[in-house]
Amino acid sequence: MPVGTRGAIKGLTFRDVRDAGAEIILGNTYHLHLRPGDRLIARAGGLHAFIGWPHPILTDSGGYQVFSLAAMRKVTEDGVAFRSHLDGALCALSPEGATDIQARLGSDIAMVLDELVGADNRYPITDNRSLGAADRDRISDIGYRTSDARAAMERSVRWARRARARMLRLREDPAVAADVQVTNPGQAQFGIIQGGVDPALRTESVQATVGIGFEAYAIGGLSVGEPVDLMYEVVGHTAPQLPAGRPRYLMGTGMPDDLVECVARGIDLFDCVLPTRNARNGQLLTRHGVLVIKNAQYSEDRRPPDSGCGCYTCRTFSRAYLRHLFMAGEMTAATLLTVHNLYFYLDLMARIREAIGFGSFEKLRQEFHQTFSRRPQQP
Amino acid sequence: MPVGTRGAIKGLTFRDVRDAGAEIILGNTYHLHLRPGDRLIARAGGLHAFIGWPHPILTDSGGYQVFSLAAMRKVTEDGVAFRSHLDGALCALSPEGATDIQARLGSDIAMVLDELVGADNRYPITDNRSLGAADRDRISDIGYRTSDARAAMERSVRWARRARARMLRLREDPAVAADVQVTNPGQAQFGIIQGGVDPALRTESVQATVGIGFEAYAIGGLSVGEPVDLMYEVVGHTAPQLPAGRPRYLMGTGMPDDLVECVARGIDLFDCVLPTRNARNGQLLTRHGVLVIKNAQYSEDRRPPDSGCGCYTCRTFSRAYLRHLFMAGEMTAATLLTVHNLYFYLDLMARIREAIGFGSFEKLRQEFHQTFSRRPQQP
Repeated sequence: MPVGTRGAIKGLTFRDVRDAGAEIILGNTYHLHLRPGDRLIARAGGLHAFIGWPHPILTDSGGYQVFSLAAMRKVTEDGVAFRSHLDGALCALSPEGATDIQARLGSDIAMVLDELVGADNRYPITDNRSLGAADRDRISDIGYRTSDARAAMERSVRWARRARARMLRLREDPAVAADVQVTNPGQAQFGIIQGGVDPALRTESVQATVGIGFEAYAIGGLSVGEPVDLMYEVVGHTAPQLPAGRPRYLMGTGMPDDLVECVARGIDLFDCVLPTRNARNGQLLTRHGVLVIKNAQYSEDRRPPDSGCGCYTCRTFSRAYLRHLFMAGEMTAATLLTVHNLYFYLDLMARIREAIGFGSFEKLRQEFHQTFSRRPQQP
Repeated sequence: MPVGTRGAIKGLTFRDVRDAGAEIILGNTYHLHLRPGDRLIARAGGLHAFIGWPHPILTDSGGYQVFSLAAMRKVTEDGVAFRSHLDGALCALSPEGATDIQARLGSDIAMVLDELVGADNRYPITDNRSLGAADRDRISDIGYRTSDARAAMERSVRWARRARARMLRLREDPAVAADVQVTNPGQAQFGIIQGGVDPALRTESVQATVGIGFEAYAIGGLSVGEPVDLMYEVVGHTAPQLPAGRPRYLMGTGMPDDLVECVARGIDLFDCVLPTRNARNGQLLTRHGVLVIKNAQYSEDRRPPDSGCGCYTCRTFSRAYLRHLFMAGEMTAATLLTVHNLYFYLDLMARIREAIGFGSFEKLRQEFHQTFSRRPQQP
């Protein structure tokens, strides 16, 4: 899912987004709640109508942004109090409140509010793939203690129960809350599995959350700074415990190889700002790895970013031209690089789906790793 | 002609540009010469190949930017010496040099280097349409003296003669200059009429410039701060003296009503940053006039910017959504507003061409003025 934080995929129009192959986008509840406001969006008929995107939308709960962006937050059993990063205004988000906001937004998939550990205390994602299971002992590297992870997981379960109860009440009687204009009666709600990097906590979280009963489930609290192999381990431990007939969503991941590896471990759905954010920073993701477009070696390179790619950017423009636009600070550079990165991600997922259908996913996985490297690409 | 200063129309991809109806774009020689450099572009096969736009391109001579952007410029009979606005590097532009640069760029239409008065000393364009012929006496308002205008006009004629001679030499024998890689042997060259706001100077300039003999002619040195009625007078005086069978190009104009009025006076071709720049500043041009999208009155306005407009933006998005994107600082706001403004300009020109064909241009002109106002639009 391309991330459309404030009702737009940064640098793109929706026809670019569709052309890149997107079927569903993600909107950020925190940002839309603060501006332009979920009540205004509800009066416009919901988020689909307001932003002019008639296709599926998933909204997060706002929790991740509260834990990573907002200032002076205070977590109690009731919910989170925080100050808006826009104007410092005092705000509050509760499990019921996050459900109500998303009911007004009318997304197709709403997420429950969860408590995160790690999001506010993360260190740069390391690429040290040699780290193994021993990392579990180096729990201080993760930025939180197991007892923190347990407390947040247990609170997340209690919050999930409240969010589900609120959701079901709104679904059964949309008129139950006079100030909640339900704009999409068919909205689904996903529960979120927490528990940090501890397998036992993850299993507990799965059992309790699946016990509440949601349309489907997400794995949260990963890609917040832990070593990538540890993330894979947690996904590999958790995903198979989730109901087989429902989509499994890994929140906030990741690099292209993460997608391949996490699909291998049972994940169906991803969201990440990486393809769009890295594009604006001049990084193209290709089947060979990362191409840093500002590098002087591309100044007269007439090849497309990725000769095997069918996106508009690769069909039309050279590395030399894209480098020129990026160096000149032209907005069009961000647009064209984003078009490529999104297409690359969505095409990778489409090829994965196809390979699964043909029973050849393991072959795709091997070939992918033979070609792809996280180190910047050489000419 | 949409303005693609550095090889891109700001905020758009070329498929947006084509979709808006553009058949020809303008590239700025000054900017492209400084970065990425006309020699690099020539090695890539010329500007069309480098930027991936296979349709017509007009390049200016670079003179206007030297006179308006560059620092510490010094004009001599030989040409202009100046410092790059990018890095302060000492540069020089001569009539022959500007011709050579454009030969390397390989645009379809090259412009001669001219000397401008007014560009560096302009005051904000006034909208006081009540000013009449008496303005000619208030020549100090224009920012230059008639004697300055005469000197610049006469030098421009001498420069035009040198530019044409260079152009013809390159055309007859593309190998004549070892360091000039001619990338478009079919390039045309337009002369430029100068003479400020003085009718006698304009007539002199026409006679001398047409005497040299170019594929077609432009009127330069207007829209640099003079009252709009005075600009119309100069256009009305000058355009009819230019060869009837050749396109007449008014450089750097203007507002939508300027296009209608200057077509009425004999102009065929325009360029202006106004539709693209104003879009980035949140101003939409509509058949009613200027719509300032940030105004609070649009925060819940579900109508498109212009209900009579067929552009992607008006077909898809509401004023409320566009306002939200603009207030949030989303790049997509600039893109969507630019898509509309360009479509509006190009559609206006298309309707003008059609009306001329049907003999109903005067009717279009009257109806246009009945609807259009330069004052910000009321809801």
